[in-house]
Amino acid sequence: MGRWQAHGAKYTAPPMPEPIPIIGGTGALGWGLALRLARAGQQVVIGSRSAERAGEAVARLRQDAPGSEVEGLVNADAARRGPIVFLTVPFRAQSENLNNLRDALEAGQILVDCTVPTAAAVSGKATRSLGVWQGSAAQQAQEMVPGGVTVIAALHTVSAPVLGDPEAGLDEDVLICGDRRADKARVARLLELIPGLRAVNAGALETARIVEQLTPLLISINARYKTHAGVRITGLPHGDPWE
Amino acid sequence: MGRWQAHGAKYTAPPMPEPIPIIGGTGALGWGLALRLARAGQQVVIGSRSAERAGEAVARLRQDAPGSEVEGLVNADAARRGPIVFLTVPFRAQSENLNNLRDALEAGQILVDCTVPTAAAVSGKATRSLGVWQGSAAQQAQEMVPGGVTVIAALHTVSAPVLGDPEAGLDEDVLICGDRRADKARVARLLELIPGLRAVNAGALETARIVEQLTPLLISINARYKTHAGVRITGLPHGDPWE
Repeated sequence: MGRWQAHGAKYTAPPMPEPIPIIGGTGALGWGLALRLARAGQQVVIGSRSAERAGEAVARLRQDAPGSEVEGLVNADAARRGPIVFLTVPFRAQSENLNNLRDALEAGQILVDCTVPTAAAVSGKATRSLGVWQGSAAQQAQEMVPGGVTVIAALHTVSAPVLGDPEAGLDEDVLICGDRRADKARVARLLELIPGLRAVNAGALETARIVEQLTPLLISINARYKTHAGVRITGLPHGDPWE
Repeated sequence: MGRWQAHGAKYTAPPMPEPIPIIGGTGALGWGLALRLARAGQQVVIGSRSAERAGEAVARLRQDAPGSEVEGLVNADAARRGPIVFLTVPFRAQSENLNNLRDALEAGQILVDCTVPTAAAVSGKATRSLGVWQGSAAQQAQEMVPGGVTVIAALHTVSAPVLGDPEAGLDEDVLICGDRRADKARVARLLELIPGLRAVNAGALETARIVEQLTPLLISINARYKTHAGVRITGLPHGDPWE
């Protein structure tokens, strides 16, 4: 059992005080997520391939989220710093990153995969997607992480530029897929610390193959409406579904 | 050029006074759509494989939408009655229906395909989908309709039971895919006659392969939340995008 194994922890517990590693935290989505979590009072660890770029992002973050506790490390070191690790790299680099994290990730950790297999990864259109052999990028991640690491898919529909704009308000949903309800709930609790985001339980990890397609759909809508669209699920009952 | 060809008609024109054929109008989605359109003052033609079942649906419709102008016909006859034809049959029956409509549909008509290729069509789960060779059920429809008929994909995310419940309010989007903006706009104008529905231009017809997946996604969410969920796109600018 690894360091991060949940020892009978209830999934209703508040997000842990441990730092939140963001692999690829210098990219647009990772940066935006880091910014929002830092402003929500969470400790963030920016991971990057280069320690120098991680350091630069940390400096920027300290400016946009004054007083926040942030750290910059190379990805593998960042991944060791907390129980819930976000993977926010382009699909093109997902497998390479997961290979590099093989010795860093440990049983009990949660990997939140935000990867979207758009055809842009192979010089195609971002309004089209690639078929992934395992069904989705998230399922590919689940195949590649060490045993005991749970993959949760999330954040595909939240616009990176909006997330990274400290002035922009959010009012949308995050669709969360995963096979362990308790782990989904931990990620939900964490993401709902960001004002304006509601976490919706979208189903099993295999449902990521649908949710990952929403990014190309929103990119198609963005092109037509000149905006940064998001998604809201209507008709959900009131109350906390994660209890 | 067929009877229904638009003779330079502007797509900003209000919905035509012609009747609206609904192929498969005795099914849950078709029935709900017929009900809402009839209550919005539109003439509706219920199509069915059986004239008798069409007649029964018409009798029900007259009860739930008093004073409405409705007709019940076998599908092929129904399809000849108006320029915008809705196809609301299960995926299992889509090809058969399109074959049967080959002599009925004419150049200039719009076929609004609402088909969702869930795995339920082959005794699988409704939270999973089938791969369609052409990319989507809508693209399959485009391949099968006579030349000059435009296929528009719509209505996949609107719950049939909600649509069919006269007491239920709607407050959600309809995502519309198609290759001709003017035809998408005509369908948008028509669907927006239903109170609580906003039509969103989701992109080219090929984008239907994403939008059709939203039904299995919502079924997955419905199972978890015990509800009839819908979709709302956030962040769209105000104003009429169909002008």
